[in-house]
Amino acid sequence: MSATYRELRERAFTANMEIPRRGLAIYTFGNVSAFDRDRGVLAIKPSGVPYDRLSADDMIVVDLEGKVVEGRLRPSSDTRTHIVLYASFRGLGGVVHTHSTYATGWAQTGTPIPIYGTTHADHLAEDVPCTEVMRPDAVEGDYETETGKQIIECFRDRNPLHTPMVLVAGHGPFAWGEDAEKAVYNAAVLEEIARMAFITRTIHPGAARLPDALVRKHFDRKHGKKAYYGQK
Amino acid sequence: MSATYRELRERAFTANMEIPRRGLAIYTFGNVSAFDRDRGVLAIKPSGVPYDRLSADDMIVVDLEGKVVEGRLRPSSDTRTHIVLYASFRGLGGVVHTHSTYATGWAQTGTPIPIYGTTHADHLAEDVPCTEVMRPDAVEGDYETETGKQIIECFRDRNPLHTPMVLVAGHGPFAWGEDAEKAVYNAAVLEEIARMAFITRTIHPGAARLPDALVRKHFDRKHGKKAYYGQK
Amino acid sequence: MSATYRELRERAFTANMEIPRRGLAIYTFGNVSAFDRDRGVLAIKPSGVPYDRLSADDMIVVDLEGKVVEGRLRPSSDTRTHIVLYASFRGLGGVVHTHSTYATGWAQTGTPIPIYGTTHADHLAEDVPCTEVMRPDAVEGDYETETGKQIIECFRDRNPLHTPMVLVAGHGPFAWGEDAEKAVYNAAVLEEIARMAFITRTIHPGAARLPDALVRKHFDRKHGKKAYYGQK
Amino acid sequence: MSATYRELRERAFTANMEIPRRGLAIYTFGNVSAFDRDRGVLAIKPSGVPYDRLSADDMIVVDLEGKVVEGRLRPSSDTRTHIVLYASFRGLGGVVHTHSTYATGWAQTGTPIPIYGTTHADHLAEDVPCTEVMRPDAVEGDYETETGKQIIECFRDRNPLHTPMVLVAGHGPFAWGEDAEKAVYNAAVLEEIARMAFITRTIHPGAARLPDALVRKHFDRKHGKKAYYGQK
Repeated sequence: MSATYRELRERAFTANMEIPRRGLAIYTFGNVSAFDRDRGVLAIKPSGVPYDRLSADDMIVVDLEGKVVEGRLRPSSDTRTHIVLYASFRGLGGVVHTHSTYATGWAQTGTPIPIYGTTHADHLAEDVPCTEVMRPDAVEGDYETETGKQIIECFRDRNPLHTPMVLVAGHGPFAWGEDAEKAVYNAAVLEEIARMAFITRTIHPGAARLPDALVRKHFDRKHGKKAYYGQK
Repeated sequence: MSATYRELRERAFTANMEIPRRGLAIYTFGNVSAFDRDRGVLAIKPSGVPYDRLSADDMIVVDLEGKVVEGRLRPSSDTRTHIVLYASFRGLGGVVHTHSTYATGWAQTGTPIPIYGTTHADHLAEDVPCTEVMRPDAVEGDYETETGKQIIECFRDRNPLHTPMVLVAGHGPFAWGEDAEKAVYNAAVLEEIARMAFITRTIHPGAARLPDALVRKHFDRKHGKKAYYGQK
Repeated sequence: MSATYRELRERAFTANMEIPRRGLAIYTFGNVSAFDRDRGVLAIKPSGVPYDRLSADDMIVVDLEGKVVEGRLRPSSDTRTHIVLYASFRGLGGVVHTHSTYATGWAQTGTPIPIYGTTHADHLAEDVPCTEVMRPDAVEGDYETETGKQIIECFRDRNPLHTPMVLVAGHGPFAWGEDAEKAVYNAAVLEEIARMAFITRTIHPGAARLPDALVRKHFDRKHGKKAYYGQK
Repeated sequence: MSATYRELRERAFTANMEIPRRGLAIYTFGNVSAFDRDRGVLAIKPSGVPYDRLSADDMIVVDLEGKVVEGRLRPSSDTRTHIVLYASFRGLGGVVHTHSTYATGWAQTGTPIPIYGTTHADHLAEDVPCTEVMRPDAVEGDYETETGKQIIECFRDRNPLHTPMVLVAGHGPFAWGEDAEKAVYNAAVLEEIARMAFITRTIHPGAARLPDALVRKHFDRKHGKKAYYGQK
């Protein structure tokens, strides 16, 4: 392993290890990548390797064509989806795909997660979007690239930095952020939002969405120009 | 850090660390304050700092005007809600706000948690109350103070020492107690009550409330003049 | 502490510590007693003491009149319910009361847990029974003794050794066994049965009970004259 | 203990210990066997021994007639079901039976688990099948052998290597694989699939199955001739 990508591999590794630590996946489910936009490369988890056998040296460095730049193992089978997201969405430094239980449960219904409360509005100002179910001809094509395209299509009128997560219908969640650590944070928040929404929906199937004024207030409190949450 | 507020900061810190230990919040969600009524100051968690990086020295000491008396960091964005509660409710020594999963799931329905059983009645003698959804003009004002006012409004005909918890509609739970430790205890009990009520409601949507005689008996067994639970 | 009841206190203590270990209660909820039928005394948890501060020396030894024979603290407020069960049911060596989440969720519906599967039938050959809701006049009397009487009433035509658990309507579960360890085992099994039945009921509200032949087979495989489960 | 079956016993023991580690069963529920097809023997968990008291030397070696070849204890009461599966399904090296909570919850409804998403399709290309409820005359016969026969009957038109799991109606799941480790993996995946399907069904009772093209794609990505998942 060269020293060139050491820091990038370390970042990807640390973020991947958060997946089991946060209970977001079992066995080999899920993968995180860290992106170096200047060099045009990402470091990503190898395919099918369980978290408890993973090391930073196992991370694979791949360019935006999908070519392996460094690494002994085969990269995650979802690598091309990550690439589409980095190529299409500006400002992304990390992408995460998991099969976390509640977010996947919602993705399997093929419907967005309604914005029921402020936990949700603290992180995005709309329902968690859900893509269309992939058409058979797209499935037969370059499947992982098509998955990325579906997400892009779903975000045609959305700002991916304001809505840093999506459900792929019948599949599961993707989340992203300015770096890999933030991307995993968003994936964990999505799982918690999905759990709360499941509870709300089960208690009261007709529960109302949070009024717009409250959505705006909570989102801006953390993300707006006059944000006053946190230490900066 | 001066020695003046050391004990108050320690108390606030210990109570804040109970939040992740009891599984009541992830990341930075949730905050606890400890109140020194004689000095008119509270110690509270800093805004946006994760529990695993928190120390007692990070606690912020704030007066009832919201002015920072001691501390390097910015206090929790919910500080003004805590202040309203201390200023309005007598006998409070601690206040907790969490986004615990089941209590938040109920808060998102905008309805009280029905008093279905004795676990609930051991701690309060009525449904867990739920505030109104905040009106847009209040949201646009001093939001965190307005949140406090909504709770006060909801408790106009209630004794906050007998009902030490509330759901803020579309948001999440607040709980309190004679000290910060007791406040976190009430927050944890609320989450458990919310979980049990979710189960009861899902099994049998028309489940009946606990009869008044049983509510009274259980509440008085622990809190009445002839209480005989515990060691005092 | 005398040596006379050391072994009994130890047994009660060990069984009580299984309550938090098995996730059957938070804080001070729940209590276990161990019975010495020859001496006519039971050792039970003190009232309101959290599990993480409990020691074997804290156990209280009480006779069947409810008189404290040995111990510095006040016994569990549910002691008289335990006494009624030991006095009325032959062969009991341990009694447990918890507020475990799913069993309590069912108790709050006031209905028995249907015998949906073999996990259930391995332990009892009928629905988990549920008492009537206590009438107001009984509540006003000796409440804990009345709770015991309700259970006895519910078991008028039942064999408590074949059905070692019950739901007290609006309250929570009691379980028992030939010794305190077995009683806690039955309480943990009840919680698991309650969880499975919650899932079955939610997926398919009209799910059928297990046919009688299968109920009989599973129960007898473990408990019948020709039992062939286990090592004896 | 002879050295002859040491490796087989070790393999069975390691796989059995995964059951509590993965949260698939409490107490003595569940059992795993490892099969040595050349010698025609399997090593299996002893009946009724809790996992925390289990050692590799406790494993029982049994032949396909059910005769104990080596071991001091009585083998799992489910041994004959394991034997039927090894005798009927080619290529099996491990069999697992658990009472894992969500899979059992589904088994108790007597219905298959619909293939709602790609987590499911990554492992099998159809609903998780569910046997018929056993008829009374079969129950009265050699019960454990009959359980095996029911599974065989259910797989008359199925490939057990492509669908490595089943629900026994009113009872619980069985899973298998090319070795004991893979069998436990499949049992854990089944529990996770069952959990996700519970959530999907509860949110939206009419949720659609995953379209065939996606089912095929995901299954073949991992198991087809052109599989490209993992490191081989």
